[in-house]
Amino acid sequence: MPSRRRWKITSTMNNLKNDTLIRSLLRQPTPYTPVWLMRQAGRYLPEYNRTRKEAGSFLALAKSPALATEVTLQPLARFKLDAAILFSDILTVPDAMGLGLYFVEGEGPRFERPLRDAAAVARIAPPDPSGVLRYVTDAVSEIRRALAGSVPLIGFAGSPYTLACYMVEGGASADFRIIKSMLYSEPALLHRILDLNARSVTQYLNAQIEAGAQAVMIFDTWGGSLSHAAYAEFSLAYIHRIISELRREYDGARIPSIVFTKGCGTWIEAIARTGCDAVGLDWTIDMGEARKQIGDRVALQGNLDPAVLHSSPNVIRAQVANVLNSYGAGSGHVFNLGHGIVPTTRPESVQVLVDAVHELSAAPHL
Amino acid sequence: MPSRRRWKITSTMNNLKNDTLIRSLLRQPTPYTPVWLMRQAGRYLPEYNRTRKEAGSFLALAKSPALATEVTLQPLARFKLDAAILFSDILTVPDAMGLGLYFVEGEGPRFERPLRDAAAVARIAPPDPSGVLRYVTDAVSEIRRALAGSVPLIGFAGSPYTLACYMVEGGASADFRIIKSMLYSEPALLHRILDLNARSVTQYLNAQIEAGAQAVMIFDTWGGSLSHAAYAEFSLAYIHRIISELRREYDGARIPSIVFTKGCGTWIEAIARTGCDAVGLDWTIDMGEARKQIGDRVALQGNLDPAVLHSSPNVIRAQVANVLNSYGAGSGHVFNLGHGIVPTTRPESVQVLVDAVHELSAAPHL
Repeated sequence: MPSRRRWKITSTMNNLKNDTLIRSLLRQPTPYTPVWLMRQAGRYLPEYNRTRKEAGSFLALAKSPALATEVTLQPLARFKLDAAILFSDILTVPDAMGLGLYFVEGEGPRFERPLRDAAAVARIAPPDPSGVLRYVTDAVSEIRRALAGSVPLIGFAGSPYTLACYMVEGGASADFRIIKSMLYSEPALLHRILDLNARSVTQYLNAQIEAGAQAVMIFDTWGGSLSHAAYAEFSLAYIHRIISELRREYDGARIPSIVFTKGCGTWIEAIARTGCDAVGLDWTIDMGEARKQIGDRVALQGNLDPAVLHSSPNVIRAQVANVLNSYGAGSGHVFNLGHGIVPTTRPESVQVLVDAVHELSAAPHL
Repeated sequence: MPSRRRWKITSTMNNLKNDTLIRSLLRQPTPYTPVWLMRQAGRYLPEYNRTRKEAGSFLALAKSPALATEVTLQPLARFKLDAAILFSDILTVPDAMGLGLYFVEGEGPRFERPLRDAAAVARIAPPDPSGVLRYVTDAVSEIRRALAGSVPLIGFAGSPYTLACYMVEGGASADFRIIKSMLYSEPALLHRILDLNARSVTQYLNAQIEAGAQAVMIFDTWGGSLSHAAYAEFSLAYIHRIISELRREYDGARIPSIVFTKGCGTWIEAIARTGCDAVGLDWTIDMGEARKQIGDRVALQGNLDPAVLHSSPNVIRAQVANVLNSYGAGSGHVFNLGHGIVPTTRPESVQVLVDAVHELSAAPHL
């Protein structure tokens, strides 16, 4: 098995037909700015909704390597995207720890057994990526086979703090009252959870890399809800540890890493110092300013306001041009939204965006 | 009438028993760091909930000068706060424009007639502060009388963009889809609304000053949801215009102004350049860093994470100390939360906070 997998990956790495994403993440020249979109496989696509309905539930969809492969490829069949991203959910990891993930229609994810005390924390351990999370690495392998070297596949995981938000709160939260009470009153207990999450995410991402992920991204959706001091201690420190323990190469290929914290405006220098290859920016940050600050060390990914996609083609093109111009000429930019595509987006608007990025960025790169 | 009012205010200004807030906002020395809390009159107080219930509705409470005075004073009866803030709502202004404000229990404010097109915008005009908004200036006068010079009274308004969010969306929104569509597709129409709001807010705040408000604050709750370029054009530009047209003195007293944008991390230098006297900071910003950047030009207000108030007295004291130490010695700091008190806060915790600020800050100021 290992030898068969190794052969496949090596041959594919050497034959990526479109390696613009990998090159841009490593700040190497590309003929145009590559583009992919957070949640590019998702509810704005009618074909996704059909597959989701057939699967019966979101979890059934995410846990089937065949269906996860199908929806991962759907946006690539429509648009000239420069990367695929594994269809999955950041909560697969705490689910695999046995917290009992379920979804309430219209209200998002919930856990049956949230972590609230030392006894509950003592009962959990990092899930085995080749055991209970095998469906994820199987999906990665299957997607890689299906992509056949057309574009690279991005793997991903939630940041330790973002995962902890759901694990401790038991679901989404507006004010994070429970986890913040733990953070301020029982910091040692939260650190135990974060340590566990960091080890879990490291193993999980390395397993994705070994299964075929050609770049990896850490989503820190909720780090931006922390105070300045708490972000450093409870979110960034653990992201830093993961980055330093990730495989940077696999089978001869560099595996770039991307860190995205929503609301990271004042933090980008510190994020760049984690050793990641690229920093994802939300739309509140000026791309050109960010490049001045950290563009000599990392690539930048982003950062169009997802709301722009509700506009006309002309407006979308103009706003794409603004982001490209803000970054300026030269390598090191991966175009993306500043957050995930919203479900009310028309697929035609994504087409306009992708084409505009390619067309408008081709000139400055010559 | 004017002469009577003038006499009253002058005499009170000259006799503020506790002028620490005004002095700190003007970066003058004080014996300790003054403290007040956003939403200090609100749902975490049982006496507020009783008055609110008797009033029958939030709007009935806000529109009665007697009841608004009662709830404004409630937190001051409990805690040694260094300022009162007018009990009101930022949406009084669009309500007075005739948009039909109402509240849905548990879902927040709504407008019966949201602004969606040029015809609707053409029908509205800045509301007369001495007409339809008279209940606000009456409340200001009544609160001033009741305070009898004990502490200063802060008046406030929403920022033009934040008001426009509610006016265009018709209520609260998670993604601001409608106003952002207008922003990107019909920017001239949104600018008309913002111009109208800026004129309204200027008149409204100046009327509050003339009625007795001794400092004013602009709440830009949603400016932080904008892209970097859009924040400058659609939010900050209008705040700047208001600040430049506010009365800076009234009856011989300087009337300091405070600007608070939630999520303003990368913007504080630009906010300081509006000419305001103080910049309000949310809890994601390091107070000491902010002081290094802009502390030579403006006072800083903030910025404890409101979630800290769910902790034990020892933790609250330690976190208060962190904010005070981050600012450091010297004048120019007004202690506050980084956002409003959440309703689940125990009043006893607010007591601990207020006492801790006074006690812990007395030493460095000597």
